[in-house]
Amino acid sequence: MRKSIATVSLSGPLSEKLTAIATAGFDGVEIFENDLLSTSLSPEDVRLRCADLGLSIDLYQPFRDFEAVPAELLARNLRRAERKFDVMERLGADLLLVCSSVAPESLDDDALAAEQLRQLADRAQRRGIRIAYEALAWGRHVDTYDHAWRIVEQADHPALGTCLDSFHILSRAGDPGGITDIPGEKIFFLQLADAPLMAMDVLQWSRHYRCFPGQGGLDVAGVVAAAVKAGYRGPLSLEVFNDVFRQAGAASTAVDALRSLLLLEESAGLAAPPAAAAPSGFAFAELTAADTEPLRGVLGALGFSRAGRHTSKPVELWQQGEARILVNTGAGGHRGGPALAAIGLETPDPAQAARRAEALLAPVVPRRRGPKDTPLDAVAAPDATQLFFCRTGKPDHPSWTDDFTGLPPTHAEPAGGVSRIDHIALTQPWHQFDEASLFYRRVLGLQADESLDLADPYGLFRSRAVAGPDGGVRIALNVAPAPGEENVRFQHIALATDDIVATARLLRERGAGLLPIPDNYYDDLDARHDIEPHLLRTLRESGILYDRDETGEFFHCYTPTIGRVFFELVQRTGGYRGYGAQNAGVRLAAQHAYQHGV
Amino acid sequence: MRKSIATVSLSGPLSEKLTAIATAGFDGVEIFENDLLSTSLSPEDVRLRCADLGLSIDLYQPFRDFEAVPAELLARNLRRAERKFDVMERLGADLLLVCSSVAPESLDDDALAAEQLRQLADRAQRRGIRIAYEALAWGRHVDTYDHAWRIVEQADHPALGTCLDSFHILSRAGDPGGITDIPGEKIFFLQLADAPLMAMDVLQWSRHYRCFPGQGGLDVAGVVAAAVKAGYRGPLSLEVFNDVFRQAGAASTAVDALRSLLLLEESAGLAAPPAAAAPSGFAFAELTAADTEPLRGVLGALGFSRAGRHTSKPVELWQQGEARILVNTGAGGHRGGPALAAIGLETPDPAQAARRAEALLAPVVPRRRGPKDTPLDAVAAPDATQLFFCRTGKPDHPSWTDDFTGLPPTHAEPAGGVSRIDHIALTQPWHQFDEASLFYRRVLGLQADESLDLADPYGLFRSRAVAGPDGGVRIALNVAPAPGEENVRFQHIALATDDIVATARLLRERGAGLLPIPDNYYDDLDARHDIEPHLLRTLRESGILYDRDETGEFFHCYTPTIGRVFFELVQRTGGYRGYGAQNAGVRLAAQHAYQHGV
Repeated sequence: MRKSIATVSLSGPLSEKLTAIATAGFDGVEIFENDLLSTSLSPEDVRLRCADLGLSIDLYQPFRDFEAVPAELLARNLRRAERKFDVMERLGADLLLVCSSVAPESLDDDALAAEQLRQLADRAQRRGIRIAYEALAWGRHVDTYDHAWRIVEQADHPALGTCLDSFHILSRAGDPGGITDIPGEKIFFLQLADAPLMAMDVLQWSRHYRCFPGQGGLDVAGVVAAAVKAGYRGPLSLEVFNDVFRQAGAASTAVDALRSLLLLEESAGLAAPPAAAAPSGFAFAELTAADTEPLRGVLGALGFSRAGRHTSKPVELWQQGEARILVNTGAGGHRGGPALAAIGLETPDPAQAARRAEALLAPVVPRRRGPKDTPLDAVAAPDATQLFFCRTGKPDHPSWTDDFTGLPPTHAEPAGGVSRIDHIALTQPWHQFDEASLFYRRVLGLQADESLDLADPYGLFRSRAVAGPDGGVRIALNVAPAPGEENVRFQHIALATDDIVATARLLRERGAGLLPIPDNYYDDLDARHDIEPHLLRTLRESGILYDRDETGEFFHCYTPTIGRVFFELVQRTGGYRGYGAQNAGVRLAAQHAYQHGV
Repeated sequence: MRKSIATVSLSGPLSEKLTAIATAGFDGVEIFENDLLSTSLSPEDVRLRCADLGLSIDLYQPFRDFEAVPAELLARNLRRAERKFDVMERLGADLLLVCSSVAPESLDDDALAAEQLRQLADRAQRRGIRIAYEALAWGRHVDTYDHAWRIVEQADHPALGTCLDSFHILSRAGDPGGITDIPGEKIFFLQLADAPLMAMDVLQWSRHYRCFPGQGGLDVAGVVAAAVKAGYRGPLSLEVFNDVFRQAGAASTAVDALRSLLLLEESAGLAAPPAAAAPSGFAFAELTAADTEPLRGVLGALGFSRAGRHTSKPVELWQQGEARILVNTGAGGHRGGPALAAIGLETPDPAQAARRAEALLAPVVPRRRGPKDTPLDAVAAPDATQLFFCRTGKPDHPSWTDDFTGLPPTHAEPAGGVSRIDHIALTQPWHQFDEASLFYRRVLGLQADESLDLADPYGLFRSRAVAGPDGGVRIALNVAPAPGEENVRFQHIALATDDIVATARLLRERGAGLLPIPDNYYDDLDARHDIEPHLLRTLRESGILYDRDETGEFFHCYTPTIGRVFFELVQRTGGYRGYGAQNAGVRLAAQHAYQHGV
């Protein structure tokens, strides 16, 4: 179906919004009135700009507080409407959104509302314009879509139809099933927004917390499916008021917006992009570094060996068990020191995974490689982390490891007991947290946990994990508290060990410290969990954090941060599937203290 | 009364919080458990640090999910409590907060809860510790203060009392009147927090939106008065969970916190700082500038004359009617160009106004002046704007104008019709918006309007006006959307004219432009207000914005921004008291466009 978006959903001036919308690939726009009032472009200029960009103007909105008023006020409202028809003529827009009235002057009289809307539609029709009447969830007398439809039906005018809005319907727990009772040709427009489930005033909820479909908790696909079943053939159009998107860049928000509509079409059974081929494990994590010495030190101390070198690029492969870390000195490196640049994901069908991601607007990573290098399927996640879809060492598929020549181990010391990458934590730009979880969940096919708010000494730290069904891939998506620091994003790689005490001891013996954990933490651990004294002493001496749930236990500890990256060691017992969220506050405070030398 | 604050109310590590709390002038602290767990200081270290800083440790908190559980779990909970008593002994804390249980295992059995709390109190008493039992608003079975008190009464143990928390009481619309039925000596502790009135889930409301008393909408003073009437003599203690304070600096937040307690004491009739002497008008606005040329240009075009020069400082006085602008080239000047540094307020009793502000923790401005200069009463507002309390040209008081020697007018052109300063708009640091309105309202004695959210192209722009009863002083407190840009704060001075069209024409004739307003705005103005065509044309040609309400009309226009400051011209008719909020979106977009040359 055609895809459209209201200009209010993006930040910046109208001309930049239109460019971002067209560049992302939308077919049309709803022109939000305030955006037109705020631009120095005339309506004719906007019309030309949209035509140049290949965008249709699908709706002009909103027209407020029109219907069911005393006669004198009706005359004023009709005059007001004619002035807006003038603007629409200049714009070349032929559909006007009329929201149900919130004005104290409006009367609770459906027949009067229908009669006055009929008059409005009559005048509109003479100008070649149609009217889409929509129930606001907080309308004074009309606040449900079926009520709005009854009035439209009663008015019975060819230039009058209804506009459905998923937020207004679902925020009041309305049953979208009744949509199929509306003749499809009388649904003039369909606006779509999701929202996180929040117990709060619906007007505030709508104005500040709407989000793109799939990012929240409403069944937007159910509304779309019902409208299509009813016969609606107009555009799917996003109308999102969101405090975060208001501040984020229009270009990336527009791409995220269109991706959410593509996924919504899939959910509603209206389109079938290539199916997800969910990853089953980590093939590698790739770090960029200008100076490799600090990384070599900690990797060596963790028991990794340098196992290979790329045949055409300055990339080293460090390996221990199935855990593989690439150290890339050719990518320029960040001024802030080593950083995580890419993740390799073991994928049953790498080409299909890449096709799906590409169809869902993930930028394909340019495959700069030597003539003999193995072809790689790779895309960029919303935070620009590169995702490589791999089949490591499988005879049915070229393996990225074929591009590495083996090297003798760099040290004779024993390995540290690390068996594989347990999880990777990626700090997201603050305005892309919801988009990131939608991406990893729906584009890659992972499952998302609940979002958690964790206490950092300098604010709240949000975290949401996505994982494959068997736990082979786990990614923790985080967003740090300070919006000013989005360019300093720390990531970490958690390595699984079967004997964390031994691995931690090796690290210490090899001179690579662990993050010191305050003594007070262990007193509390004892109070809460009544831990066996010998174990408690060991944890305390090693700086190992501990958590348990009804299924098992979790032990973890951290290396100091190198540049923008650090390592975590984790040991899971039983069925523990979490990440030790209980300990996040203490760990974050310890990292702040360590960074600032407190 | 003694004043205390929970460490969770401030950002940063525990040691920095304690320093900020002591420096602000608090008497004691509540140690929040997570702050202790996250510090490398031992409990003994914390005890010493507090003693050094002159802070008593008034409470250790929280102890959760204790009461009304099966026997096996009781044993575990008692063991857990003993471990916490160990910590408290090391801390030297003798009061433990126990929150009503939220655990699914807890039973709805008051007698059992009382019996188990009695056992806990018995063990506590042996360690010299007392227990304060508090009802959480979302407790599983106990969620009101009177219910918690009934259980405490039933347990009847000298080491067991109740803790009252204004948020938990008032967030559920509880009647604090029943507090006076509790014997004062059984109220072991009183925690205080305010919150803006919001229709949302009470747990989320509590965790993210609590604020300091006076910043929100709850009658915290009523709770304090009732507790004091009941005989409570312990500390007034703040416990505030707030997403903004979590990110703001601890030192300034601690001062704001203590100020709110001082004002709360005044509201509750427990203290009487010098009474407010509300200002009646603007004596002057002072701009700092390294280069005065751009300012002289616009002031001259507006019709101001240079009317005097300070006898000992490089400050010029520009005047038109009763509007006076000081241009100070000696303050160093900001790199960003001219900025607003100070406001002079006509005050009936300048010395008393300064004494009140000083008693309420406003820093006194150092009075660097020449030996013959007039003494000035001046303090700094929370955003560091200097406020001078003045009596201009009154025989009963020295006047700041005495320090200026008259000068012949700088130009022979006619004045521009400006009669006085209508209002001044001050952009606040994003984390001090609520504090600023508390300061101007309660310290200075102005009235506050509602807070408004206005649409800026790059986010929401919050605005709240404070004004004297007769409109002689109006200050608009704003906070701009992007938290990263708090160091670039724009302020503006609005000048009243009786003929804005003539004043705007003079500006144009003198080559000083006005902010261009989009044509589309005027089409909408006509649609909404059916404005007389000649007037509409004049507004359109002059770039004058328009608003009206049931009492009168408002006309306003803007100069371009010079450095960090711009001027607004305003004309009010009838009883219009607002600021043209309806036009803010268009104006902000026009300013962004002008700044970026779009």
